[in-house]
Amino acid sequence: MQPITETILRQTIQPRPENSHKGTYGRLTLVGGNAQFGGAIIMATTAGIYSGAGLTTTLTDPVNITALHARMPEAMVTDFHDETTLTELISSANSIVVGPGLGSDEAGLTALRRVFATVQPQQSLTIDGSAIDLVAKHDLPLPNAKLVFTPHEMEWQRLSGITIKDQTPDNNQQAVAKLGGIVVLKKHHTQVYAGHQIFENPGGTPAMATGGMGDTLAGMVGGFTAQFADQLNAVLSAVYIHSQIADDLAHNAYVVLPTQISKEIPWYMKQYSLPQSTKI
Amino acid sequence: MQPITETILRQTIQPRPENSHKGTYGRLTLVGGNAQFGGAIIMATTAGIYSGAGLTTTLTDPVNITALHARMPEAMVTDFHDETTLTELISSANSIVVGPGLGSDEAGLTALRRVFATVQPQQSLTIDGSAIDLVAKHDLPLPNAKLVFTPHEMEWQRLSGITIKDQTPDNNQQAVAKLGGIVVLKKHHTQVYAGHQIFENPGGTPAMATGGMGDTLAGMVGGFTAQFADQLNAVLSAVYIHSQIADDLAHNAYVVLPTQISKEIPWYMKQYSLPQSTKI
Amino acid sequence: MQPITETILRQTIQPRPENSHKGTYGRLTLVGGNAQFGGAIIMATTAGIYSGAGLTTTLTDPVNITALHARMPEAMVTDFHDETTLTELISSANSIVVGPGLGSDEAGLTALRRVFATVQPQQSLTIDGSAIDLVAKHDLPLPNAKLVFTPHEMEWQRLSGITIKDQTPDNNQQAVAKLGGIVVLKKHHTQVYAGHQIFENPGGTPAMATGGMGDTLAGMVGGFTAQFADQLNAVLSAVYIHSQIADDLAHNAYVVLPTQISKEIPWYMKQYSLPQSTKI
Amino acid sequence: MQPITETILRQTIQPRPENSHKGTYGRLTLVGGNAQFGGAIIMATTAGIYSGAGLTTTLTDPVNITALHARMPEAMVTDFHDETTLTELISSANSIVVGPGLGSDEAGLTALRRVFATVQPQQSLTIDGSAIDLVAKHDLPLPNAKLVFTPHEMEWQRLSGITIKDQTPDNNQQAVAKLGGIVVLKKHHTQVYAGHQIFENPGGTPAMATGGMGDTLAGMVGGFTAQFADQLNAVLSAVYIHSQIADDLAHNAYVVLPTQISKEIPWYMKQYSLPQSTKI
Repeated sequence: MQPITETILRQTIQPRPENSHKGTYGRLTLVGGNAQFGGAIIMATTAGIYSGAGLTTTLTDPVNITALHARMPEAMVTDFHDETTLTELISSANSIVVGPGLGSDEAGLTALRRVFATVQPQQSLTIDGSAIDLVAKHDLPLPNAKLVFTPHEMEWQRLSGITIKDQTPDNNQQAVAKLGGIVVLKKHHTQVYAGHQIFENPGGTPAMATGGMGDTLAGMVGGFTAQFADQLNAVLSAVYIHSQIADDLAHNAYVVLPTQISKEIPWYMKQYSLPQSTKI
Repeated sequence: MQPITETILRQTIQPRPENSHKGTYGRLTLVGGNAQFGGAIIMATTAGIYSGAGLTTTLTDPVNITALHARMPEAMVTDFHDETTLTELISSANSIVVGPGLGSDEAGLTALRRVFATVQPQQSLTIDGSAIDLVAKHDLPLPNAKLVFTPHEMEWQRLSGITIKDQTPDNNQQAVAKLGGIVVLKKHHTQVYAGHQIFENPGGTPAMATGGMGDTLAGMVGGFTAQFADQLNAVLSAVYIHSQIADDLAHNAYVVLPTQISKEIPWYMKQYSLPQSTKI
Repeated sequence: MQPITETILRQTIQPRPENSHKGTYGRLTLVGGNAQFGGAIIMATTAGIYSGAGLTTTLTDPVNITALHARMPEAMVTDFHDETTLTELISSANSIVVGPGLGSDEAGLTALRRVFATVQPQQSLTIDGSAIDLVAKHDLPLPNAKLVFTPHEMEWQRLSGITIKDQTPDNNQQAVAKLGGIVVLKKHHTQVYAGHQIFENPGGTPAMATGGMGDTLAGMVGGFTAQFADQLNAVLSAVYIHSQIADDLAHNAYVVLPTQISKEIPWYMKQYSLPQSTKI
Repeated sequence: MQPITETILRQTIQPRPENSHKGTYGRLTLVGGNAQFGGAIIMATTAGIYSGAGLTTTLTDPVNITALHARMPEAMVTDFHDETTLTELISSANSIVVGPGLGSDEAGLTALRRVFATVQPQQSLTIDGSAIDLVAKHDLPLPNAKLVFTPHEMEWQRLSGITIKDQTPDNNQQAVAKLGGIVVLKKHHTQVYAGHQIFENPGGTPAMATGGMGDTLAGMVGGFTAQFADQLNAVLSAVYIHSQIADDLAHNAYVVLPTQISKEIPWYMKQYSLPQSTKI
């Protein structure tokens, strides 16, 4: 098990080329947010946009459209029940996040199946929250794509069948090997499993222990994988910065809200893109 | 009558254990907000989330969902008319707040009756605003739960039958004994009645005399009781910090808005969690 | 013509008595905001709340409820088409503002007629924007109440019949005498007419020349008259602080937005409530 | 090709005359925002208002009204499907912006045709985003008005028929001559074509490469042309300040959000309106 280091972040978050445009930084499509859990997809979308995705579209229950736009007019948004639009927006994306607040009812399952049926091998697909539960519950066959899973320990138990007390690095690694893809196991010192490598996140604070923190991380993973070519490094960078911001804010706060983290992302990314001599 | 002291707050607001997650800090369910008074439940929810409840769900009239999410995507939200969902979300909560903006019509009464029918003895139930009036008006039998009432003087008159001019500590204490639970009597120097003890809040400012201040306190009581095991200390800490923030903001403001208070809660809680030598 | 002076403000904006509650600072009811001009009533409500009214309720087209609550959960809100609620909320108010974004169609006219039919002599009634136009167009008989009109020059022309070029202090004063009440004539150096007195506002900046500035002033007049007993002094104080804030913000801004002004009100009111030796 | 200079900005953004009112600074009408792309018109409207247009009205799909008002109550807003209102609000405007998030379906096309049928020669008409695509796709005859086009390179290819690699100043200038009006070609170092003149914007940063940046520029062009008589100078000033703000924010941010830019506009405009000796 190796720590995620700032070296990885510096390799990943490079200065942007002068001659570039929004197309250069990827198309991010997020799918989630039913009537009850709409806040989750709003927070994930917020994180994706502050992470610098070039173009961000959110597919959600229509009840969430106005609240999303009231917070983030930067997002495009449409109804996740509409198969044609969903297929189109999944097809055109570089990076897809499915799950935040999706819910585990028929509508959520249908949307998830359509995402799985549409996604292509070269696309990054982050499977989070309800989508993990749906995969586990319905034993859904996984699509051929560049998969990232972002379970917390209970979701990982459901997905892998490994009870929390048995979630050792070895057991987890074997389960990840069967599953394929990258697994971000969210816990005190989050672990990232990728093939033969296991990374541990040095940061994290109990001030983060509040609803929506995982949705924010999923959105960051989406935003980072949309614009950075090396998927594993993009995931590691998102995990690291997510908790680094929380750690810094927690110096002055007993609890850190997910949306407070998102607003800080551009500043942190900037620091890693500067020459190493520049002190953060 | 004894003052609420910082010692109580320091005993209550402890540093969070490193190895913890959102489940550690409780599930808070709030019920309130009809079409006219939706702002009240939005403010209560805001306070509950900034107070650090692990997971917060709001049951309200559907007309309030979008405004709540536009302000606080951190909240989950659903229709308070739906009996199944309400029962489920009351059952799974550590702490329940009922009343802010609930209204005193049939829908409010029905929701309140369902909360009372579902709540269990080990749960904290904060009864605020319209819910107090409904209890008084319909002489509703109180459920067996860890009750907190948060009336202002007129609501207390309706609930206890004691006119404002007769609300002496002795009279109040006798009424509280009959009622059971903790009573937070909101007034200039708010008093907290709990069994044989009476506490007085040293702080408070007339800059707080504006609509929504009580809803914010109710949300704080909800958030604090969701995460701190000693219910009385949790209530006292919420009362103290609520007015302390207002006092500080009032140095530069003729009126303090409820939502301005909520945003400061994490910083104040942090100060009490630090070693006592650290100056606030 | 005499200037509005800081002395007037200091006499008006007194330190609040310690032993007081939201009822002490008045009930403000605002009526306005049709589907097209909903922003106007949102801005007026915002100003009323930041001015320190104890309890604020807004009667508006239902289309505006969510946006109002997304910005100001401190407001209560209900449908201005509903006669029963409107009558009730006008009756229970200390101060009423009618007109911001009300529109000049049937619905607006009906609401205005109902306000006029309900208002009582001891109540402050501020007539602004569309309501001024409706009075002029339909030659509505004015109710017996403590009236304040807040026209800009073109609205004053419609209401008084005096063309802008003929709006001399003498002509205006004669028209005000016939009309009754206080007239705030909004212009470069706004004038306030009240009986035999004419006041001129020393402040004001062309950076204020943007839509919604008048709605904000109307809301301030509502908030000030709700809580300060001397109506004329309340109006003068609102006018003075409104432009003083704009003047200060305009040092660093080519244009000042109405909602930026509202957020500064509590700080400015505080300054006038402090002992005169305290420098602003 | 000549650079846009600060001299142009100083000539354009003059101190406002003391004796002026919102009518002095123009009426801006924006048309755009279907159900999916509502954020675009919200961002354009935001930019127009922060740019200092006297009165701003947005015509959009009704689904966007609440989100727009939740962010910008300063805007008036109405349904872009309503022909009567649209005609009225186009007729009364000084400056019109059509296109941000308009969409390329029937509803968008109909709205665009109505704008073209109503606009008058003395009015400034900025054609952006979907409106450019609709003009290209349907080969719409352009109206007789003071036209500004704000295409990015791909939109310019569609409109002019010149492929991106052939978009040389000479080729572009010939196409602009045929088209009429001013063309703002958005790219790394944006170019502005106007008759025989070609200007190049010295600023710009890849931190701007995110969705909504162009909508924000379109809104600024609308706001500047509404209030400044010299249309070309107004356009040049908007282009310059848009990227200047982004450049400054990008010192501390890896990505700059469009709405962050809008909030800075009044400060930047103020600097250019001050005597030249005043250092920015």
